[in-house]
Amino acid sequence: MASCDVASSCRMNEEFAVPKDVEEVRTAMANFAERHVAAGRRVVLITSGGTKVPLESRTVRFLDNFSSGRRGASSAEYFLAKGYAVIFLHRHRSLCPYTRLYTGVNLLDCLTLNTIQEGTELVTVDQRKLPNITNILKRYQEVQTVGLLLPVEFSTLSEYLHLLKAAAQALSPIGSKAMFYLAAAVSDFYIPASEMPEHKIQSSNGPLQISMKMVPKILKPLVKDWAPKAFVISFKLETDPSILLERAYCALDTYKHQAVVANVLDTRHGYVVIVTKDFQKELVLTDKEAERGVEIEDKIVKNLSNAHSHFINQ
Amino acid sequence: MASCDVASSCRMNEEFAVPKDVEEVRTAMANFAERHVAAGRRVVLITSGGTKVPLESRTVRFLDNFSSGRRGASSAEYFLAKGYAVIFLHRHRSLCPYTRLYTGVNLLDCLTLNTIQEGTELVTVDQRKLPNITNILKRYQEVQTVGLLLPVEFSTLSEYLHLLKAAAQALSPIGSKAMFYLAAAVSDFYIPASEMPEHKIQSSNGPLQISMKMVPKILKPLVKDWAPKAFVISFKLETDPSILLERAYCALDTYKHQAVVANVLDTRHGYVVIVTKDFQKELVLTDKEAERGVEIEDKIVKNLSNAHSHFINQ
Repeated sequence: MASCDVASSCRMNEEFAVPKDVEEVRTAMANFAERHVAAGRRVVLITSGGTKVPLESRTVRFLDNFSSGRRGASSAEYFLAKGYAVIFLHRHRSLCPYTRLYTGVNLLDCLTLNTIQEGTELVTVDQRKLPNITNILKRYQEVQTVGLLLPVEFSTLSEYLHLLKAAAQALSPIGSKAMFYLAAAVSDFYIPASEMPEHKIQSSNGPLQISMKMVPKILKPLVKDWAPKAFVISFKLETDPSILLERAYCALDTYKHQAVVANVLDTRHGYVVIVTKDFQKELVLTDKEAERGVEIEDKIVKNLSNAHSHFINQ
Repeated sequence: MASCDVASSCRMNEEFAVPKDVEEVRTAMANFAERHVAAGRRVVLITSGGTKVPLESRTVRFLDNFSSGRRGASSAEYFLAKGYAVIFLHRHRSLCPYTRLYTGVNLLDCLTLNTIQEGTELVTVDQRKLPNITNILKRYQEVQTVGLLLPVEFSTLSEYLHLLKAAAQALSPIGSKAMFYLAAAVSDFYIPASEMPEHKIQSSNGPLQISMKMVPKILKPLVKDWAPKAFVISFKLETDPSILLERAYCALDTYKHQAVVANVLDTRHGYVVIVTKDFQKELVLTDKEAERGVEIEDKIVKNLSNAHSHFINQ
């Protein structure tokens, strides 16, 4: 396996532009974690959505990873229900907790204009168009009131890498009370800034050859150096089921973290395998459960928060 | 300039998978156009948003083009205000007319729960969070009532190509009453189905070499064969201002259509040049106009709908 370390943060800063607000975000995350641990809560950092890899420095074209952010957003809701405080590091415009339930709904189709007196109009929600909205809104407002959810956005791979490193450093002080739930679909390949054309690639130059380098595996320094006491979960998505478990064990062996959630593209909403060095647990969503609106993320989160309890008490 | 024709639709079907519902959509578009022309309206087909180019047939990774769909969505509103009926062929989840004004607003932050009696709750909109919502909602509902807007979605480049061809064929019968306003950011490159790996490309195989072919220029058969009497506008976006006009004239010369809207990435919200074989017109948004909320699409649409009137009366 080709190796690609990122031990030197100096090299990371050279090849991946540092986002402007990274220090501010790091402080906000550290304060968030400290406050919630003081209140007796655990903290989970969820990454969600795909990363954008620019092909030009004034970017018109980019490489992207398929991900709506559904798994990260729904998992966040189940972690919140379990009492966790959640840092939600997600791709700009990917799905978010609670609002994800109304994705694809046109807001303007759900609103009604009511003239209550001349010049005063009340806009109300047609509740048939936003099913269960009163309960969802109550739950969302509870979460907001207690400040249990800290959303942080990224778009590019560079932003993701630097913000994840900042998160790891921000959560390091709370030790084993921190969980990393790395569900984002992160690019394996990128074009270094130094090799990127400045301007839009011209189609008149003929067919396109793109040569991409491997992205440093940030999981290694995260587990080893940045947050060594944390409970760390990575995700492994494959399209070929025959290599899935082998790839999951290989990741566990390489990064020495606590668990891999292994899943196959076509069946990911109904079947995952949680792989740790001690056990391998299949989670299946039955058709009956799916009909009742149960989601597999409920099962994944139950399992992992139990495993996190054991980990803390070890 | 490398040439790449798509005269043979047989080749197009081979290299770009035909979407399942293309016949249905073609019929819907043809009926829409016929109905509105009978009612004395013109019809504009707006394309909007970027196209997705898969790198694997079970797609995990894809190439994308930067585009929020803002220009297409706002232009649609101005065309509707000018009395056009609009077919809005847009990328799945890109911005849409009217709702685009509330992009980035979290729906749940704008709603208030009001208990009107035990067990009955009214959900109302906090109008400070959705500025101008009553007027926008009225305008949207008028458009819906008359059925002036037909939204059609694409995600991949293949879907875009086939749906645009279907649109051209559907609008051909209304001749010069049809305008094509091709604002979508369409990929210049793709990987043919036959050269695409089935499964997710493994990062353990080392750095990635991608070799992409040039996308056939669909504008040529559109203008020449599919809708030869229509008024056709293409867009040319560059990052380098020094080559912009040359590229715009080159497009006009190659495709023999009516106009190119030329714009530069960094200044596209405040400056465009409309290039036709007879004139070249700069449209500028002043700072004062921008402060008042004027949008450059208002000027583009005014200009082009006037030009369309002349074209029809020729």
